[in-house]
Amino acid sequence: MTTSAAARQGTPAGYRILNEADLRDTLAATPAVAERLGGPADRWTITEVGDGNLNLVFIVKGAAGGLAVKQALPYVRLVGESWPLPLSRAHYEHLALTQQGRLAPGLVPAIVHHDHALALTAMELLEPHIIMRKGLVAGTVYPGFVGHITTFMARTLFFSSDLALPAAEKKEAIASFAGNHALCKITEDLIFTDPYRVAEQNRWTSPWLDATAAEIRADLDLHVAISRLKLKFLSSAEALIHGDLHTGSIMVTDTETKVIDPEFAFYGPMGFDVGAVIANLLMAYFASAGHERAPGDRAAFEGWVLSTVDRVWTEFADKFVALWRGEAAGDAYPVSLFPGEPGAARLEIERQAYMARLFQDAVGFTAAKIIRRILGLAHNIDFELIEDPKQRATCEARSLRLARTLMLETGSFTSIAAVTKAARESRHWQPEF
Amino acid sequence: MTTSAAARQGTPAGYRILNEADLRDTLAATPAVAERLGGPADRWTITEVGDGNLNLVFIVKGAAGGLAVKQALPYVRLVGESWPLPLSRAHYEHLALTQQGRLAPGLVPAIVHHDHALALTAMELLEPHIIMRKGLVAGTVYPGFVGHITTFMARTLFFSSDLALPAAEKKEAIASFAGNHALCKITEDLIFTDPYRVAEQNRWTSPWLDATAAEIRADLDLHVAISRLKLKFLSSAEALIHGDLHTGSIMVTDTETKVIDPEFAFYGPMGFDVGAVIANLLMAYFASAGHERAPGDRAAFEGWVLSTVDRVWTEFADKFVALWRGEAAGDAYPVSLFPGEPGAARLEIERQAYMARLFQDAVGFTAAKIIRRILGLAHNIDFELIEDPKQRATCEARSLRLARTLMLETGSFTSIAAVTKAARESRHWQPEF
Repeated sequence: MTTSAAARQGTPAGYRILNEADLRDTLAATPAVAERLGGPADRWTITEVGDGNLNLVFIVKGAAGGLAVKQALPYVRLVGESWPLPLSRAHYEHLALTQQGRLAPGLVPAIVHHDHALALTAMELLEPHIIMRKGLVAGTVYPGFVGHITTFMARTLFFSSDLALPAAEKKEAIASFAGNHALCKITEDLIFTDPYRVAEQNRWTSPWLDATAAEIRADLDLHVAISRLKLKFLSSAEALIHGDLHTGSIMVTDTETKVIDPEFAFYGPMGFDVGAVIANLLMAYFASAGHERAPGDRAAFEGWVLSTVDRVWTEFADKFVALWRGEAAGDAYPVSLFPGEPGAARLEIERQAYMARLFQDAVGFTAAKIIRRILGLAHNIDFELIEDPKQRATCEARSLRLARTLMLETGSFTSIAAVTKAARESRHWQPEF
Repeated sequence: MTTSAAARQGTPAGYRILNEADLRDTLAATPAVAERLGGPADRWTITEVGDGNLNLVFIVKGAAGGLAVKQALPYVRLVGESWPLPLSRAHYEHLALTQQGRLAPGLVPAIVHHDHALALTAMELLEPHIIMRKGLVAGTVYPGFVGHITTFMARTLFFSSDLALPAAEKKEAIASFAGNHALCKITEDLIFTDPYRVAEQNRWTSPWLDATAAEIRADLDLHVAISRLKLKFLSSAEALIHGDLHTGSIMVTDTETKVIDPEFAFYGPMGFDVGAVIANLLMAYFASAGHERAPGDRAAFEGWVLSTVDRVWTEFADKFVALWRGEAAGDAYPVSLFPGEPGAARLEIERQAYMARLFQDAVGFTAAKIIRRILGLAHNIDFELIEDPKQRATCEARSLRLARTLMLETGSFTSIAAVTKAARESRHWQPEF
């Protein structure tokens, strides 16, 4: 690394960007890691997989097993040194992963080793898991996904909220993630601001979406709506959120689901994580038409995606409320205020009202996550791999049509069925290009 | 202090409870303090004023001037060692006072010296100021108060919010107050929980209010409403709030207003401070009948109080919005999303909508602050100094009547005029005792 970048970010003493030889020596000197890999260190294979946007990611394999080793760089890998990003994100990712592992056992990779100075974490190698987004592009259905992701969200969000944590513990937890603001700022800018104004980094499928992008940049009601969502993101410290819970942060097999890459984690609004999952499923749904080999050959897949959207909300809400009924140990909604049968019944009504408010947040954030992936800096392979740009633009335009409605008329979407119905309607809408 | 209490609270090395002689030596050894007091230290007069609920407060006077010296005890002074309370509150009070002094110059006492180990702060002596609540009991009007308190609230809340602070700075600021949770917990319990359930510390004017207290303990809709307010208090990190902004935390003369005692400060919902001011004015209004010497002799005072309630909201809102128009440097509501004349006009409409939401919060917190002062642990001299208990109960019952309506029907109060109108109606209501 350059010293200037290091100095700018307050790089810890001992930090250096690891090459293969250096990584081998470092891992060999760490007994827990060496034991896990097994055999002589000089026989380990090390491959830098090179597909991280932010970090170096190495796959290391030995006689006894494999590891994924992630090292943060003092800048955004995809862009280079011109976009510095603090190494402290490795600390927050490790902290989040540790807590998620405790709250949602088996749903995140196990940590084998963390080196603070090197901003490096060695984790269980997920094999034969693939990035879920790639599977969705291929039209693969994941029957176990809904169960896993709703357990992950319900448990990580509930147990870090005021419903589960005493207030003192929650305040300390908020503080422990407050330093992760550089990563939050990326979200604040790229999701909640740039797609709605002229910004150098924006891009979209031109010229087909030029008019829509311009409309969105001029739609002041939409700008009010996204600003309200941004304010919620800035000031609602509801729970420890993953902060980047799209289908590229989820690895799957037929039977397993693992949530990875929580470096954007902080205490924020729960609806942001729920909206991220729903938005990325909806984009997989809209992109599917662009991956057809014959008309209608992905109909079953598309049906599965929409039913998954439905179940993501429904099962998440059921699990969250069940935890609230059984494991509330926090300072919010003290049970002593709801005594006896009538109290229990009234609290149950309020739980449903609470979930209805959370659903509204999720609908708004769903819309925000769709718009940013089509008009902002970071795009999805769901759309990007559609080779015909006009076909891609059609799929994107349908997504944007739904997203605008979700954001402008959030209050009219009082159930997930209303969202999937609107998605189905947009799926067959033909934009006039 | 006892060593057990010290150990329990992690008392810093060097902490000891100061007696007069020790305080004199300590102050004499501090040049800034000694200079301010002037003359030989053995000629300084030191009086422990003894009216703090939590702390020791000394008035120290020398040849050149006076100081108020506040020392935190490792327990609640009013209760004793059985209720430990961390000395760190002196740190948070000093931090809040420093920031308030910077944001709202002249509206808080100037700090002359702070000693972390002793949990001690020496401040400008406010003379001839009196605690505003005492003045209100006496029927005194304070023509300058509205201007001062609305400037204090508008500036401290606005400049610590996401409208004024970049997100990174705001997150660090939240973290800097996160450790003040023991003081927050007092609020969480005594305001948002205990008055609504059987709790040992509750008290009220018995037997007259027995039935009302029981009704409030049984009103499940009210319990839902207070629980929603509590959740907001726990999870909405909107701005640096004073946290205890009642008329006992305000010192006044005819021309000056100083806000004191911000030891409950943390990042919380803005409406809590606004509601505290409004609630305590409304209680002064309802208590006034109990302080009449002749029927109607306080009518002018009562009219002033209600018009003050009206102006507290109106002028606060005007000043807050004016700051937003002129000094927005935060990440919320980026002006780049509201370009040109149409953008400015749309943002202005949203500012009003934002204030309407904040007003709703303030109405709810107003109700909460009234109920806790009549049915909870801590009462007001406004009511307590009414000697005839039945007369006191009448004034309190009128206040509770308004508070219940405000909390249960918050949404129907869309203007401060609706609140003062409802107050006027309750003022002449006769409870059936």
